[in-house]
Amino acid sequence: MAAKKTVTSATKPAKKTAAAPSFQKSKELFLRAAEVIPGAIYGHQSPAITVPGSFPYYAAHGEGAYFWDVDGNKYVDYLCAYGPMVSGYGNRVVDDAAVAEYRKGNCLNLPSPLMVNLAERLTGLIPWADWAVFAKNGTDVTTWCTLVAREHTGRKKIVAAKGEYHGAAPWCTPGHGGIVEEDRANMLYFTWNKLETLKALFDTHKGEIAGVIMTPFHHPSFADSELPAPGFWQGVRKLCDENGAVLILDDVRCGFRLDMHGSQAYFGFEPDLACYCKAIANGYPLSAGAGRNSMKAAAANVFLTGSYWTSTASMAAALANLDHLEKIDGVKTMNELGDLLMKGLVERGKAFGYDQVATGPGALPFVRFGCENNFMRQQVFCAEMIQRGQFLHPHHNWFLSAAHTKADIQATLDAAEEVFPLVKKHFGD
Amino acid sequence: MAAKKTVTSATKPAKKTAAAPSFQKSKELFLRAAEVIPGAIYGHQSPAITVPGSFPYYAAHGEGAYFWDVDGNKYVDYLCAYGPMVSGYGNRVVDDAAVAEYRKGNCLNLPSPLMVNLAERLTGLIPWADWAVFAKNGTDVTTWCTLVAREHTGRKKIVAAKGEYHGAAPWCTPGHGGIVEEDRANMLYFTWNKLETLKALFDTHKGEIAGVIMTPFHHPSFADSELPAPGFWQGVRKLCDENGAVLILDDVRCGFRLDMHGSQAYFGFEPDLACYCKAIANGYPLSAGAGRNSMKAAAANVFLTGSYWTSTASMAAALANLDHLEKIDGVKTMNELGDLLMKGLVERGKAFGYDQVATGPGALPFVRFGCENNFMRQQVFCAEMIQRGQFLHPHHNWFLSAAHTKADIQATLDAAEEVFPLVKKHFGD
Repeated sequence: MAAKKTVTSATKPAKKTAAAPSFQKSKELFLRAAEVIPGAIYGHQSPAITVPGSFPYYAAHGEGAYFWDVDGNKYVDYLCAYGPMVSGYGNRVVDDAAVAEYRKGNCLNLPSPLMVNLAERLTGLIPWADWAVFAKNGTDVTTWCTLVAREHTGRKKIVAAKGEYHGAAPWCTPGHGGIVEEDRANMLYFTWNKLETLKALFDTHKGEIAGVIMTPFHHPSFADSELPAPGFWQGVRKLCDENGAVLILDDVRCGFRLDMHGSQAYFGFEPDLACYCKAIANGYPLSAGAGRNSMKAAAANVFLTGSYWTSTASMAAALANLDHLEKIDGVKTMNELGDLLMKGLVERGKAFGYDQVATGPGALPFVRFGCENNFMRQQVFCAEMIQRGQFLHPHHNWFLSAAHTKADIQATLDAAEEVFPLVKKHFGD
Repeated sequence: MAAKKTVTSATKPAKKTAAAPSFQKSKELFLRAAEVIPGAIYGHQSPAITVPGSFPYYAAHGEGAYFWDVDGNKYVDYLCAYGPMVSGYGNRVVDDAAVAEYRKGNCLNLPSPLMVNLAERLTGLIPWADWAVFAKNGTDVTTWCTLVAREHTGRKKIVAAKGEYHGAAPWCTPGHGGIVEEDRANMLYFTWNKLETLKALFDTHKGEIAGVIMTPFHHPSFADSELPAPGFWQGVRKLCDENGAVLILDDVRCGFRLDMHGSQAYFGFEPDLACYCKAIANGYPLSAGAGRNSMKAAAANVFLTGSYWTSTASMAAALANLDHLEKIDGVKTMNELGDLLMKGLVERGKAFGYDQVATGPGALPFVRFGCENNFMRQQVFCAEMIQRGQFLHPHHNWFLSAAHTKADIQATLDAAEEVFPLVKKHFGD
């Protein structure tokens, strides 16, 4: 989020490892990019932009839980392409299913039987869902779901929790460039885990609220994650029911990482509409909307299309990927390994006198320095971890994949043991 | 466009060919889909939906200029997946470039050098463009360009030509479901080829218009296409300049079919921003925005991101596809073949007493019955052509690809010779 950019001066660690990586080629590419791309690297909060000089700028290739930057440096990847990589880079099971479809034409005039198969698969997997639709971006389906909520209720207003990310469309983008007041004239905001602030909106805007859109847990950038307080989701559901509003679960980031049956199963509630993307097809471009039968007529009335939306390769990839994740119990692996990572970082921090704050579920963990709010130690820590082949984003939640192993976690914790004392020395803690 | 749906009763042709295709499996799949997908087939104006029973519903695979439906019927494809297929389904040059990237991880944490290469390639190809950005859907970049225009000018209003399609976002979707007045509070509309109607908007809204977004020629559905009148584009450019408004070319549908250097080269003008999609990567999901240096600062200020937007496979596909199209002069082939098709259909129509109306450039032609405005003969004609393995959309412009041949056109015209008398008999003309 450009608006929240925090830039520190380049880190000068007290001690360097023998094979400190160079980002020479990354930097050369960045300069070339700056000529022909506005801002050179746009979008996702790349730490290469927010902490200049300490992170690689360009990736060359990936395999399993690892990726290599253009300078040949290898990383254990705890960002997983910001979520899509869930079964390992270059997973052959998923790739072979997709490649077979490319050979068969992929993007044709008409939908393919795979679209029907995948809709049946998703509605079988997600207990409350009766139907599904498919698009490309998370934003495609979050936006579409807000329109379905409006169409269903005949109302205008959409409620979101402050600081949550629902995509890059005018109604929700975290950027301000080009946005005018009309774009958000129908948006209302409440505070995560403060049910009374949602109730106040319903009271003030009686009969005007079409829907409430929320992520399964709260994972803003530059902040700790927050799990739902006991009874919070049930309270949200109740308020929506009492006020005739549609509850939209934005499961784009968490879907198929917390529970194969959708993140509502993990937290014990049921939405009316939900959005999936990221982990659904291990990086093949696909997003999905799902809903109850009560929303189906409204859904059929809201126009939904895109140039590549009936393409088969991404749907074949999703079918293969969901099967694979179920078969290996990927959710269990991700959450157990993430728990190990969080526990290990907290323990190692404590050994050096730091109170690390670990938040979020294991599959999407985040750990930061509890003694600061400005992420300065966090940036130095992550920059030093990068020097040791560990890719941890300083101010965005991390992701585990089913391709990570205990040995990866151990290597990361070993690196952390080298890095905590460097941070201590750097800041004179 | 659901709003304009026209349904006729099923066609009962006077004469059937020996091997009239069945759509049995298509229909079975459609019934299955209706259970788990709102409307069963959404989005694109599938003739299977607008003319029920006369067109296939589901595709199985494609190769070159042909595709097969799930019942095994083969078609010469004049819709080209609504544009993306430009170099032939399953084109090995494009597919091999993309598949190599899938094997290397494709969707990684960071952008790849391919993104820089592709931005350099596009700015080299499009004479007026200094920079490029990449997304997935056409809508992603048309929407983003309107925000860049607002950011650049500090103004709110966007002007479009009535009836033009710019995507499925709330500001531009042809659907009405879920759309509220605020979504289009800043939209203004003028009439294609009527420069005075654009001038009137600039006069009425002095200093308020951020940008004008238009397609290179006018290609609404359920209507003839209209090429720009002499001086029209130059007049639009002049009005934008005089009023400090940004001229956005929506080249999503036409790009790389009229001219490899962008459709503005074909019509002799220069925009400030442009949008590409469809033909850029032969079906691999990619869209692009391009702009002048004067727009670069504004562009860098408008947030732009998506889960799969730095993926390499689509960028490798685009690089391979653009090279391939240049090498074989695909634009020349498509336009020549489309001209042959239009000329041939007009001639054969005339032989049976019909004044066919052929509009649009060769690469995106459209031919309809001049004696009607309700598309009834058109639907019967296209349904009978389907029976003969020729896929012509009854009320959406057609597309040629570089994989089509003169023999394909001849086969289509031969089929038309069988079909015109059937239409004549059916309507008693």
